[in-house]
Amino acid sequence: MNEKIRCLREKIRARSMDGMIISNPKSIKYLTGIDSEGILLLTRKENIFITYSMYMEAVNSVLTINDDIIVMNFKDITKEDYENFFLFCENIGFEERYVTYSEYQNIKSKYKPNNLIETEGIIEKQRMVKDEEEIENIKMACEITDNCFSYLLGFIKEGMTEKEIALEIEMYFKTHGADGVSFDTIVAVGENAAIPHWVPSDRKVKMSDPILIDMGCTYKGYASDMTRTIFMGCMLEEIKKVYDLVLKNQLTVEKMIKDGYTIKTLSQSVESDFKINNYDLIHGLGHGVGLEIHELPYINSKNESILRTNMVVTNEPGIYIPGKYGVRIEDTVLVTKDGCIPLTKSSKNYIVI
Amino acid sequence: MNEKIRCLREKIRARSMDGMIISNPKSIKYLTGIDSEGILLLTRKENIFITYSMYMEAVNSVLTINDDIIVMNFKDITKEDYENFFLFCENIGFEERYVTYSEYQNIKSKYKPNNLIETEGIIEKQRMVKDEEEIENIKMACEITDNCFSYLLGFIKEGMTEKEIALEIEMYFKTHGADGVSFDTIVAVGENAAIPHWVPSDRKVKMSDPILIDMGCTYKGYASDMTRTIFMGCMLEEIKKVYDLVLKNQLTVEKMIKDGYTIKTLSQSVESDFKINNYDLIHGLGHGVGLEIHELPYINSKNESILRTNMVVTNEPGIYIPGKYGVRIEDTVLVTKDGCIPLTKSSKNYIVI
Repeated sequence: MNEKIRCLREKIRARSMDGMIISNPKSIKYLTGIDSEGILLLTRKENIFITYSMYMEAVNSVLTINDDIIVMNFKDITKEDYENFFLFCENIGFEERYVTYSEYQNIKSKYKPNNLIETEGIIEKQRMVKDEEEIENIKMACEITDNCFSYLLGFIKEGMTEKEIALEIEMYFKTHGADGVSFDTIVAVGENAAIPHWVPSDRKVKMSDPILIDMGCTYKGYASDMTRTIFMGCMLEEIKKVYDLVLKNQLTVEKMIKDGYTIKTLSQSVESDFKINNYDLIHGLGHGVGLEIHELPYINSKNESILRTNMVVTNEPGIYIPGKYGVRIEDTVLVTKDGCIPLTKSSKNYIVI
Repeated sequence: MNEKIRCLREKIRARSMDGMIISNPKSIKYLTGIDSEGILLLTRKENIFITYSMYMEAVNSVLTINDDIIVMNFKDITKEDYENFFLFCENIGFEERYVTYSEYQNIKSKYKPNNLIETEGIIEKQRMVKDEEEIENIKMACEITDNCFSYLLGFIKEGMTEKEIALEIEMYFKTHGADGVSFDTIVAVGENAAIPHWVPSDRKVKMSDPILIDMGCTYKGYASDMTRTIFMGCMLEEIKKVYDLVLKNQLTVEKMIKDGYTIKTLSQSVESDFKINNYDLIHGLGHGVGLEIHELPYINSKNESILRTNMVVTNEPGIYIPGKYGVRIEDTVLVTKDGCIPLTKSSKNYIVI
């Protein structure tokens, strides 16, 4: 049986469950490598993936004998088969944060499980700590992102619009080995940089504008996430102070991150330093990155959980001055035993283009 | 009150509901024009949209007095406020096909409604019949799609890969007034055209290859969907027969579509003509198009419902010869009192480039 499923089976056993119905495609991709539509059942003795005729070939080409997964076709499964999958089982887990209320009713009537049990993100929690192959994929996504950033420094010119720059980034990713963007690229110029989730517009880059670029791609399904704030022509003195404060905090957090560290302390450190300088941290300091661009763990001042080796998280403090400008600096980093390794490596010095 | 909400309120009253909690962003966009995250409550007397601080400005800029919607901020809403929204109400509707099981539990504990009632796609059903503004947006998306197709006829050359062509389509949409693609573009060359949901690969276009292109964009959120199968250099005789059969059926369906027609009859007609010729219709004949690329009504041989004026649906028969080639021809059409108007208008004759 593959290691990820073996590990999940241990966890569900520890919670007195006899099986699990897995419907979130990200969970299925994580556990099996399968990208096709379907449902994964962990029954008492078997791992079963049920899919449609048109995906059978693709599914079988992804699986190896070691995965120990039986592939079935929805059209061959009878009413009795559904009821037999979890026969004599007491507690069956399901993904209550993914399954809709209708689907939940459908699961109840089809499988007739004795007890359907909420699994409270059991797979999402397991996904927090990455294995070697996952880390390699994220590293590759980060490398493509760094290369794209270098390219942009030569590409961006006065008079270009936010939309044009965002489109160029998307094109770059798709023509340089990535699957595509890992989220809608943010290019926010001048006063738009003061809005953390800005959507690229027809605003043109002008002399002395800050240009906030928040971008990432996916490689074999795994995401990268990086933000840099650069400047057109010159850098206004008043922004320098804010830039320095954001960067100082970003570097401080980078030094704090390591296995065993309590997550909320990271965010509290930035919040208190910002507060001393009369600013607020108005969004989360970071988040896990993997098959999803935003996944566990969330780095904020309420999260009591602990960083572990091989988690991959972002470190992205930002300060926003409404109507004027904003500065955010973000890396994707790998947590290690003694510290962290930034996987996005683009320069964080003042960059004036 | 805006017309769409007024109409929805009539429907929920007719089903003895005193209000509704609307959480699907597509439903919210449809009813209000709002694109921002939040929740829409239809209480006994008021329409309330609750959102986050960062979206307040965007939300207020979309609404007019005529909408009669009160905008609130999540952070200002107390435990008591939640319980008061539906005080003295008996039945409150929710979107059971969208809300996750966790969210359902959350709604129950926050609003403490007496009865939460499944609304069985009440809004999705209302969305089937489009108003003038919606039709204008879909027409524009279709026009951009037609223009893109004309452009492609000059762009595609022997030796190009499926991926390159798909990327060019995406670029075209983004630089010619569309928001972007309405679904992942399918470019399937040669034997890949035999797989209805092919994902563009590095397969290159060679002499005599069929090239199946299934593409669409969105304009102001509204989608288009069109498929054409064209040929590189020449068209093999064996494909002509299949092409003619697909086209004959596509045109027959185009003639059948009109207000009052029973949906399943459309599909049954194609199935029986394909069967006579020893082929099968292996996927749905079509689907509604609007804020989503696939929405109600689904055109298949099980759907007993009736076409109505101002529904927008696709008409997309296809024949697939595994390992060899496939032909699909698809238009987005507007249902009228006496027939239908194809909104995608690209030529369906043999096209050899």
